[in-house]
Amino acid sequence: MSSPLRILVIGGTAAGPKAAAKARRLDEFAEITLIQREPDLSMASCGFPYYVGGTFDDRNLLIGSPAGITRDPAFFHQAKRIKALVETEAVEIDRAARTVTCQHLPTGERFSLPYDRLVIATGARPLRPPVPGIDLAGVTSLHSLADADALRAVRDQQSVRMAVVVGGGLIGFEVCEALRLAGIHTTVIEKTRQILPFLDPHLAKLVENHVRTHGADILLGHGVTEFLGENGRLTGVKLDNGTELPCELAVVAVGVKPNSALAQSAGLTIGEFGGIAVNEFMQTSDPDIYAAGDCCECTSLITGQQMNAPYGDIANLQGRVAGQNVINADSARFPGVTQTGICRIFDYTVGFTGLSEQRARDLGMEIETATIAGTDIPGFMGGKLLVSKLVAERQSGRVLGFQCIGPGDASKRVATVAMAIRGQLTVADLVNADLPYAPPYSLALDHVIVAAQVLENKLAGRMQGLSVAAVKTRVDQGADCFILDVRTPREFEAMRLGIGETLIPLGALRDRLHELPQDKDREIIVYCQISLRGYEAAIILSARGWRNVRVMEGGVLAWPYPREK
Amino acid sequence: MSSPLRILVIGGTAAGPKAAAKARRLDEFAEITLIQREPDLSMASCGFPYYVGGTFDDRNLLIGSPAGITRDPAFFHQAKRIKALVETEAVEIDRAARTVTCQHLPTGERFSLPYDRLVIATGARPLRPPVPGIDLAGVTSLHSLADADALRAVRDQQSVRMAVVVGGGLIGFEVCEALRLAGIHTTVIEKTRQILPFLDPHLAKLVENHVRTHGADILLGHGVTEFLGENGRLTGVKLDNGTELPCELAVVAVGVKPNSALAQSAGLTIGEFGGIAVNEFMQTSDPDIYAAGDCCECTSLITGQQMNAPYGDIANLQGRVAGQNVINADSARFPGVTQTGICRIFDYTVGFTGLSEQRARDLGMEIETATIAGTDIPGFMGGKLLVSKLVAERQSGRVLGFQCIGPGDASKRVATVAMAIRGQLTVADLVNADLPYAPPYSLALDHVIVAAQVLENKLAGRMQGLSVAAVKTRVDQGADCFILDVRTPREFEAMRLGIGETLIPLGALRDRLHELPQDKDREIIVYCQISLRGYEAAIILSARGWRNVRVMEGGVLAWPYPREK
Repeated sequence: MSSPLRILVIGGTAAGPKAAAKARRLDEFAEITLIQREPDLSMASCGFPYYVGGTFDDRNLLIGSPAGITRDPAFFHQAKRIKALVETEAVEIDRAARTVTCQHLPTGERFSLPYDRLVIATGARPLRPPVPGIDLAGVTSLHSLADADALRAVRDQQSVRMAVVVGGGLIGFEVCEALRLAGIHTTVIEKTRQILPFLDPHLAKLVENHVRTHGADILLGHGVTEFLGENGRLTGVKLDNGTELPCELAVVAVGVKPNSALAQSAGLTIGEFGGIAVNEFMQTSDPDIYAAGDCCECTSLITGQQMNAPYGDIANLQGRVAGQNVINADSARFPGVTQTGICRIFDYTVGFTGLSEQRARDLGMEIETATIAGTDIPGFMGGKLLVSKLVAERQSGRVLGFQCIGPGDASKRVATVAMAIRGQLTVADLVNADLPYAPPYSLALDHVIVAAQVLENKLAGRMQGLSVAAVKTRVDQGADCFILDVRTPREFEAMRLGIGETLIPLGALRDRLHELPQDKDREIIVYCQISLRGYEAAIILSARGWRNVRVMEGGVLAWPYPREK
Repeated sequence: MSSPLRILVIGGTAAGPKAAAKARRLDEFAEITLIQREPDLSMASCGFPYYVGGTFDDRNLLIGSPAGITRDPAFFHQAKRIKALVETEAVEIDRAARTVTCQHLPTGERFSLPYDRLVIATGARPLRPPVPGIDLAGVTSLHSLADADALRAVRDQQSVRMAVVVGGGLIGFEVCEALRLAGIHTTVIEKTRQILPFLDPHLAKLVENHVRTHGADILLGHGVTEFLGENGRLTGVKLDNGTELPCELAVVAVGVKPNSALAQSAGLTIGEFGGIAVNEFMQTSDPDIYAAGDCCECTSLITGQQMNAPYGDIANLQGRVAGQNVINADSARFPGVTQTGICRIFDYTVGFTGLSEQRARDLGMEIETATIAGTDIPGFMGGKLLVSKLVAERQSGRVLGFQCIGPGDASKRVATVAMAIRGQLTVADLVNADLPYAPPYSLALDHVIVAAQVLENKLAGRMQGLSVAAVKTRVDQGADCFILDVRTPREFEAMRLGIGETLIPLGALRDRLHELPQDKDREIIVYCQISLRGYEAAIILSARGWRNVRVMEGGVLAWPYPREK
């Protein structure tokens, strides 16, 4: 029998343990060593906000297996015969000697470990803006379990009344929710004009409105220029417009950066976005060294381009592929990502897959989009609102992206479209999708199907749409358009936009055409609650000679701007 | 201007109104007439069980638009300029003259309507077994709104204490739940040995167990031979084994049959399953006549075979295609179905897409399957159990089917796999799916991905599985196998199978190999709570020379048979 394969894995959070465990399952006799800088292993990092926010109180759930066993070095040894060295940092890779120099952090002791195959899973670290005062006590991030412990202590001790979150992305809002649930007045500061950059602006605006209804503030368009403090403790933040905001806690969530320095020092190829470059086998430029998780780059299945995708699920998938290939080279592939993500923000789910309209246009793609609003399940079953936007390539009809937000079940719809994108399906395929239908779960035509049908109508030229943002611009600029609301008087009484609209219910429209502009070239913008009736009205008008009729997509329920009532 | 196109649509429930509405949107000036035998239009038939069961009390929700307008003939006229004739039956189609003879049911008056294009959407009717007593008062089905009204009255008047449901399919259990929620003691009678024929038996058995915990009874393997009565009213049912079951209400739900007699009389081609034959344009053998919904057959996208798919969502999709093609011939296609369905049964969701193992084997396909158990989201977020089975073609790895049941969110997983099947994806594609991950919505590796990973392991020969049913058979037959539970002592104390198993926790296994059979060819069956640790244990044993080690798939949580505790 040949001597056992020596596998070294650097990184013990997500991709690393996954790679080690998978390697063990493929080779019972390999010598597998896991090196982890932090004291804990296999932490459920994505669960940190929910621990901080009080969804659960037992910290051990973050580091335990489903059977309730803490994933410590003893567990790794007993269950998997993996040697896990915690509080140990890999400081240098000697590729010629095939060794890694490690340092035990508490003692400072250095030692060298040999490898036949190496997996680098060093993760990412939170970006820290180069702003004065960032080292003050009270300025933190939510990245490590120690961070989570500290923020949870803030909740438990009720030691903070005012907090800011710097950065209006996914993590920023998860933290915002957690702090708000801890009873802390929280302000999210985002230096661009929009939160949640993976959404198009009009959807992001709806989320923004929702956050505000839950008592959290959002400041857009201003960056933090200084963290203010007294006696080494944070007392506030200063913005680029001079505003000072008092706060005792600031959580920085402006993104992460791949931890690729170790790999770079070893001469491995680094990609253009700072991550370790790997092929589809998760193999680096050194054939004996693999990389997985947030430290490496991966391929977009939509654009073919390289990108960073620092998500826990992707790290696990990649770790598994790396773990398989260290035993049997080239036996598993990680093809790439469809760029899917989701988060809960108070009562809203915010999900996306693929490209937003903005992103697709930035890439120079010829696209068409459709925005719709509607309930996830029938009203009589307690349906909740979803607002979605579907993006497709204009020529081929290939689905490129989907955004879905609201109190309804967005998660299912995002998963559905993510799989459609993975299958390179077109709008025409989605239009006739056979999805699980019963009233507790879906409308007879699911939200995803309706989105595809609207987009099909637009692609076929049967509908001219206008986004709520475009309508708002026209209204603000005093454009000479006629705005037509075709809902019932009762709906109009309950809630109206107040943008100079005229009410003519759809059922009366054919008899009241004389109330419309008689200049048939004048732009008419029509909508209803969700703009299905708006679409029907537009068809009636177009059939009767009006040449410039546009449907405001998503209707009243997708309107994120101030309303009359 | 040419004279307007005359479009006649027979059937006013789902496919018919959809076809009429779509035709209107494509031709504002066509003359569109909708003929409906029942008094109501566009009824939300799939919502009937929830009205009967008291999920909501306002009957108008079943016939109203989302804006709250009742979909009566006035609505169809005003909003859509569609002439809707209710309580009117189409009795004969004269294809040569292109007319349909109709009868107004309340008056008996007959009249003839001309058409240029005809859409037949006559739906299906409930099968009524040819059993004595079936016409007794108290024997009913849940098909029409009148049926729903009658069953709702039973709830409101508390006039029934004992009911039976004849037929253990989807509708049967929706009715069972509704009656049970009305406080009625309910027994479902299914003449085969299994409920829910679209599931494989071991999953159906888990649902059966769940139904029983909610106080409903299930009788398997016996058909009803007679409905017993006094003074014309039902008093009980008699089974083929002689048992008499007292009841005041019997709801027959043994399936439906396409209403294709009208089409058949007109000489249109009828398919082998009794539905109207249509091409992908929903066109019948007469090019001017289209059909849509439960009355026609459609194509399975998996097998390519014709089938009946009497589901509300499919009816709507087909109606839309027919409505488009009556205006612009051959402009829209309905490619077929992936055979997806779902229902709620008390706290369980029961969903499926594609082929079950049994169905695939009946078709002679070479397949592999994987059964898994697990939570939908992490335990710390309140995850709920799902038990699933994934079926794939052995050679190609193409995903053929998926069943998913349990209190967890099965709907999302079924939609995800339905889309994968639609995209003709393989197990390898699912293994690396980029799905929306955050703890409120999914595990880091979603349930669907885990199912695919297990199936990949089986396809690659890395795991030899055994279904719970196969294990049960071995145990019952006293087969000479060694049964190994590798959970923790605490889990073992809380719940164990009691089938002669030996407990050796995974973490201790490598040190206690001497406790295993020393005959390395003896069959060892190993499992844990969900059989992930079971799989790891099997690998350890195989690596150490045992040649016949099998994992009981899905573990303790997928075991549907009596347990020791």
